[in-house]
Amino acid sequence: MSASLENNRIVLASRPVGAPVTDNFRIESQPLPSVNEGEVLLRTIYLSLDPYMRGRMSDAKSYADPVEVDDVMVGSTVCQVEVSNHPDFEVGEWVLAYTGWQSYAVSNGEGLLKLGKSPSHPSYALGVMGMPGFTAYMGLLDIGQPKQGDTLVVAAATGPVGATVGQIGKLKGCKVVGIAGGEEKCRHAVETLGFDVCIDHKADDFAEQLAAACDKGIDVYYENVGGKVFDAVLPLLNTGARIPVCGLISQYNATELPEGPDRMYMLMGTLLVKRIKMQGFIIFDDYGHRYDEFATDMSKWLAEGKIQYKEQVVDGLENAPQAFMGLLEGKNFGKLVIKVADPL
Amino acid sequence: MSASLENNRIVLASRPVGAPVTDNFRIESQPLPSVNEGEVLLRTIYLSLDPYMRGRMSDAKSYADPVEVDDVMVGSTVCQVEVSNHPDFEVGEWVLAYTGWQSYAVSNGEGLLKLGKSPSHPSYALGVMGMPGFTAYMGLLDIGQPKQGDTLVVAAATGPVGATVGQIGKLKGCKVVGIAGGEEKCRHAVETLGFDVCIDHKADDFAEQLAAACDKGIDVYYENVGGKVFDAVLPLLNTGARIPVCGLISQYNATELPEGPDRMYMLMGTLLVKRIKMQGFIIFDDYGHRYDEFATDMSKWLAEGKIQYKEQVVDGLENAPQAFMGLLEGKNFGKLVIKVADPL
Repeated sequence: MSASLENNRIVLASRPVGAPVTDNFRIESQPLPSVNEGEVLLRTIYLSLDPYMRGRMSDAKSYADPVEVDDVMVGSTVCQVEVSNHPDFEVGEWVLAYTGWQSYAVSNGEGLLKLGKSPSHPSYALGVMGMPGFTAYMGLLDIGQPKQGDTLVVAAATGPVGATVGQIGKLKGCKVVGIAGGEEKCRHAVETLGFDVCIDHKADDFAEQLAAACDKGIDVYYENVGGKVFDAVLPLLNTGARIPVCGLISQYNATELPEGPDRMYMLMGTLLVKRIKMQGFIIFDDYGHRYDEFATDMSKWLAEGKIQYKEQVVDGLENAPQAFMGLLEGKNFGKLVIKVADPL
Repeated sequence: MSASLENNRIVLASRPVGAPVTDNFRIESQPLPSVNEGEVLLRTIYLSLDPYMRGRMSDAKSYADPVEVDDVMVGSTVCQVEVSNHPDFEVGEWVLAYTGWQSYAVSNGEGLLKLGKSPSHPSYALGVMGMPGFTAYMGLLDIGQPKQGDTLVVAAATGPVGATVGQIGKLKGCKVVGIAGGEEKCRHAVETLGFDVCIDHKADDFAEQLAAACDKGIDVYYENVGGKVFDAVLPLLNTGARIPVCGLISQYNATELPEGPDRMYMLMGTLLVKRIKMQGFIIFDDYGHRYDEFATDMSKWLAEGKIQYKEQVVDGLENAPQAFMGLLEGKNFGKLVIKVADPL
């Protein structure tokens, strides 16, 4: 390590009102912190960008603390150990960390998950083998309880969660109906991921197309979007349907409640008369103790070619804000990852 | 049986718009039907009146078919066998039936549940030992999953479902906060049923009182009301809360959706960030196979004096429409039962 190295980082400059804009972020450089005894210096190779980060930018009470203004944006990273003063870590080792939007971080080793000396796809730990894949797996299997012959609907069908949900649904014998934005994503969902059908939510007759595709109704709806997608799903839900609520990306930039009428009790009335379960979950809080079960199944499925996984890698930490803003608008295609630096 | 006996019955004269009115019902008399070989004539002793019947008066699609105009109103009954041409039934035997708002019915025996020759409290089969008690038991225990020290909130606290939910909650070690209409009901909930506290929803500062009573938030909310009660409950829900949705009596007479803003996605957002489960259920559809488990526990609890049960018995089938209209307004106090005839 040269003494001239600096830590580049992106901090929250101000809280967004509605959709985040460039001015909400600020890139800055700092001298590298010193690495004391019992610590390692982590070099960020990959940074994960995920929709939940929008919530952290607001100061509304949520399941996790907000990022403070002037603090570095949070996020999962795949790093290499560049300096080690810690007996358990060697230089060059790969780890999964939560060091955020910056090129370097010092860690005492707590919370680092070792990925080995030469993992074949280190960035997968941010996607299909990490939080998004685990989210897909537990939400679908534990809350969604898919059964052979069920109709499973999943939005954001080519995102890292949706793509995994749908493919696991196929493994469990479901009819899988995807929803995605645009023809290219829909084609990918069917041709590469093996969904039975995928509907473009930008189509004028989207709701009619969804109803036609779900001619036997919907048994499991994996919710990660909300908005007009859920509006179209709601009347199609079957008796006994299950709705894992994983995300509501369409609402993350909302600054006020939508206009009326108030459909809250209509929703609850539907849950009642159709005996529907709707359940929110936060993956590591609810299911952290079942990670090994997921990792075992998913490794096997990947090795057998039963799960396909698509990444979109954007080069350069400085491009993270723009990429993140696009993510919230559905502009990405596949799991969005920032390549922050070359490996050692 | 005298040949001059007639069957008095109350039919749906017209579908209500909003709250039911007297004109929606018509009482009429018919000659008794003949009792063929393999059939029994059932004499209705008790008729149960329950909120779900409001749903059957509308032709909106629901979990059960609507009552047709000019058809007899549906409902659970406790009957005695007055004439038997069926080898399995003796004259004088008591049965739980679903013969509706009428004084007599002929049955081929299907769906009749035998209650014996001299049950000690035959009408209990319509309440604490029947559908309402079973609904309370399974909704709370299976969906609500109450744990020692949880705060359980239940509305309609002196109704047959709410009263049972709260008392089972106490048996499971919960802090039980009831909600009821008026001082007398609230006193009954605390002094007789053993709730920790009961709040009058008619109070101007109802929401503040509820928040003060639930100073550690709400872990289980047993939903049978909706409306302003749920509005007050929603901000108090704890992370990981469970909401069995058993009924929404405040909404049953609604003719249109409430004014905005639209809180549907706010509700779903709350389910998400607080990892809440909200689940509707229809007792016999979801849990019919577990009736024996309920009956065993409840018989024991009643025998041990651990569950108190209050009935409001109204005399005369002709008074059923008025009593039912009052039920939807919360005018009853305890399980509402019509005494249709004296026992044989």
